[in-house]
Amino acid sequence: MRKQVEIRQKILKTNEEFAQANRDFFRREKLLCLNMISSPGSGKTTILAKTIKRLRETVRIGVIEGDVQTDFDAEKIRAMGAPAVQIETRGACHLNARQISQALDELPTDKLDVVFIENVGNLVCPSAFELGENGKVAVLSVAEGDDKPAKYPALFAKARAMLINKTDLLGPAGADFDIDRAEADARKVNKSIRAFPMSAKTGDGLEAWCNWLTEQVRATREP
Amino acid sequence: MRKQVEIRQKILKTNEEFAQANRDFFRREKLLCLNMISSPGSGKTTILAKTIKRLRETVRIGVIEGDVQTDFDAEKIRAMGAPAVQIETRGACHLNARQISQALDELPTDKLDVVFIENVGNLVCPSAFELGENGKVAVLSVAEGDDKPAKYPALFAKARAMLINKTDLLGPAGADFDIDRAEADARKVNKSIRAFPMSAKTGDGLEAWCNWLTEQVRATREP
Repeated sequence: MRKQVEIRQKILKTNEEFAQANRDFFRREKLLCLNMISSPGSGKTTILAKTIKRLRETVRIGVIEGDVQTDFDAEKIRAMGAPAVQIETRGACHLNARQISQALDELPTDKLDVVFIENVGNLVCPSAFELGENGKVAVLSVAEGDDKPAKYPALFAKARAMLINKTDLLGPAGADFDIDRAEADARKVNKSIRAFPMSAKTGDGLEAWCNWLTEQVRATREP
Repeated sequence: MRKQVEIRQKILKTNEEFAQANRDFFRREKLLCLNMISSPGSGKTTILAKTIKRLRETVRIGVIEGDVQTDFDAEKIRAMGAPAVQIETRGACHLNARQISQALDELPTDKLDVVFIENVGNLVCPSAFELGENGKVAVLSVAEGDDKPAKYPALFAKARAMLINKTDLLGPAGADFDIDRAEADARKVNKSIRAFPMSAKTGDGLEAWCNWLTEQVRATREP
């Protein structure tokens, strides 16, 4: 058991070295980098596609897509006219900082204001691996249940914002989800987390999120 | 990198020893054990609660609940009158066979026909850890999107059955999910997988799943 703990610490140490290099790069370039973490199917890719479309004229967005297998997601982002790099982890359950470092070489970062990292769909492992990002964004869909912040506190403790997606599925005949409960549970572990209920499908709630994002870009450009 | 691979193989070898002991135990006791794997919030606990209620008179069900944190789920199962043991993994992203071995000591296995293991909500890591179960059951909700079998093939390749839950959310104003596509993608990696669309909430589709489960129990009792 001690051996496993040692190895885990070593893996995290190597990861932290690459994360620090990425962090330095983002600071030097005044580039905002947000690491999006969620369960599979919460709607991260659709949120990004709609955000890109909405902010096309004002914020230049690039995306690093992480998936266990397939490159569907990068295709969807490119279809919106934004540069995207796909990382296939081939079974691994999270992205690491070395992969991000390599992917950054393939993005036209000097022509971007923000790099989104769409992590592998997994609410547990990705939150343990710092990628050098400026902040984490937790995404959950109302179909997943409002108990997720209580059940998976590690992510919500670290996230700058939480997006509560698929609000179009709420309602008497739809999903049961108490937005206040989810927010309150997230605040128990993270007082400053910002919550954005939204439906990427209908566009409802996207404006508040896009305004916040634009503000984050501005604060990164002119610190 | 080679070092990491070696350690991983060692962890899996230790896990396999416990898994084999569990496997022997289930065979000796003619006890069916199904390992349920899904993303967070697909509805595993509700499916189990409804299954327990429906089969109360004919199939004796016990549950081992795995969660990163909290014991909400075991409480829900006990409320249905079935014995449940909670394993809190404290951050770990999957259950291992040693934990199952210990949990089995706390269940009245001589009075059970089937033990369900509700794994940690995670579509990636749990499928790499055999627990000694007789079969895996993959669960996904229609809100997660029909691309999940293509994106996370490791689980679907190994599962005996896939439950497609929350069909009540389907429809023109609801979730977009092509059940045929999800099934076809799963069959590409696993010809014999059985698919059960259902809504644990409304009860729709539960009968076919319960009939299949009853059949599996019978086949385990009288091999």
